[in-house]
Amino acid sequence: MANITCSLCDERACYLRRYSGQRFCRRHFIEYFEKKVKQTMLRYRMLERGERIGVAVSGGKDSLSTLNILSKLAEKLDLDLHAILIDEGIANYRAATIKQAKRFCEELGVPLTTLSFKERFGTALDEAVKLSQRNACTFCGVFRRKLLNDAARELGCDKLATGHNLDDEVQAIVMNYLRGDLERLVRLGIDAGSEQLVPRIKPLMEMPEKEVALYALLSGIPASFEECPYAQDSFRTEVRAMINRLEESNPGIKFSILRGYQKLLPYLKSYQAKALRSCATCGAPSSGERCKACMLLEELTPSA
Amino acid sequence: MANITCSLCDERACYLRRYSGQRFCRRHFIEYFEKKVKQTMLRYRMLERGERIGVAVSGGKDSLSTLNILSKLAEKLDLDLHAILIDEGIANYRAATIKQAKRFCEELGVPLTTLSFKERFGTALDEAVKLSQRNACTFCGVFRRKLLNDAARELGCDKLATGHNLDDEVQAIVMNYLRGDLERLVRLGIDAGSEQLVPRIKPLMEMPEKEVALYALLSGIPASFEECPYAQDSFRTEVRAMINRLEESNPGIKFSILRGYQKLLPYLKSYQAKALRSCATCGAPSSGERCKACMLLEELTPSA
Repeated sequence: MANITCSLCDERACYLRRYSGQRFCRRHFIEYFEKKVKQTMLRYRMLERGERIGVAVSGGKDSLSTLNILSKLAEKLDLDLHAILIDEGIANYRAATIKQAKRFCEELGVPLTTLSFKERFGTALDEAVKLSQRNACTFCGVFRRKLLNDAARELGCDKLATGHNLDDEVQAIVMNYLRGDLERLVRLGIDAGSEQLVPRIKPLMEMPEKEVALYALLSGIPASFEECPYAQDSFRTEVRAMINRLEESNPGIKFSILRGYQKLLPYLKSYQAKALRSCATCGAPSSGERCKACMLLEELTPSA
Repeated sequence: MANITCSLCDERACYLRRYSGQRFCRRHFIEYFEKKVKQTMLRYRMLERGERIGVAVSGGKDSLSTLNILSKLAEKLDLDLHAILIDEGIANYRAATIKQAKRFCEELGVPLTTLSFKERFGTALDEAVKLSQRNACTFCGVFRRKLLNDAARELGCDKLATGHNLDDEVQAIVMNYLRGDLERLVRLGIDAGSEQLVPRIKPLMEMPEKEVALYALLSGIPASFEECPYAQDSFRTEVRAMINRLEESNPGIKFSILRGYQKLLPYLKSYQAKALRSCATCGAPSSGERCKACMLLEELTPSA
């Protein structure tokens, strides 16, 4: 049957890109995917020749795919890659993914630095959850972001690459639209970096989650597809389902959401100016007087 | 049972406002509703003493409720109200609603001006649909907007009030976010008016559709609840259902969407400047070289 062959060769197609109508075989899908990620990096000027790039790896499909593509570019662009893994301290989950990430970094010849909540903050995530009323994602998000930035600075990285894909971005954009949270809406898109904050890049930001999963699978990347046992942000889950339903009936709408947001951003640049201060306790960039990490840490420390 | 009495008196409650937890009896609901609409008009400086206000009426709950509240304010604020009705030419639908609107205007002592597509453009909506591939809503939206503005200008109105409620506003905002349509996103919220364009006000923009329907019902307003037979904008229908689901699990989210949009708007003011031009054919304000109404009219006129 003609309609199940690749749009570019006679091989059997394994993927139909609904919003463009193109069909790809394994080889052409990988080719398309890597090319598009490289174009994204070029368009947003994510990389400069000779830079040291920290790559946040969790062992999942997104971060390992990001690392894989960056390592393919490393020689040509003279990049110095450093994988950074954060061990939050989640029993029966993190150990396996750490093993996978380590193995893959060794395979690619990329040095891996591991930082743990326990060692840096004195409290593993499992313990923090028991000590507090807050949900795990609150601690995890704040502490992980801080440690990733600390590690990238300590390693002297020029940039920090994360595995956020199109779905992650679009969900965050829509969540902020719906909540009316202008602060986060702006922070999401404008990341100029600062003396204290390593600029972050998101090479997969234009790639749908489905395509990233397929890429990892077809490229033989040993990624974990396991969900974090704490995963439970019910509002994000709701928004994700909603956007996926919309995409079903309006193929390409994830891209229009992203494009619309990108058109908005330049007008919001003047908002940025008043958004960032320095934490009174640790000096890290903060939207309030003290940064979220310091406030959460205090909650975990019994007062004397 | 205590929990079914009004929060403000001992009467039986007929409405629970989920996002605030308040319960209202008939009298207190009407009181709350009218007060909040007046506050909205005050906050957005919609009215000035002594103005002539055109009120777009369709015979539905939104426009007749708007007219009802404005007429209650008319004496105090020395307002000169003129109801404006557009007869699109929709068989088996419009006639009944026109009758209702006429009756209500007479009851309130507000003069009513009726303009029809047939008389002004030479083509009723039913005919336009038969002559063209386009769907009815495209013609109707463009032509109705134009006639409402023409009528308001001819009557010398300072403002044109429409019945858009919170749900209408939020649906339009979210549709534009999702489509990435910055042009419409801006036009929706910034309406400074111009020499050619009568400034529009939306007194019900902060009132949920459900509350408007209840207000019309409890106030004995003879509003039609019939749906237009052409109603079929599938994307809006999808977005409406989506937002209503979200509101179910996150009471108050319609307000956060509106608030977030209002926080965005001031940053988008500089976008406005390049958005409006004059139609080369009729001189009306237009985002392109010619206005949408002139382009659609041409489609309906057989070329000689």
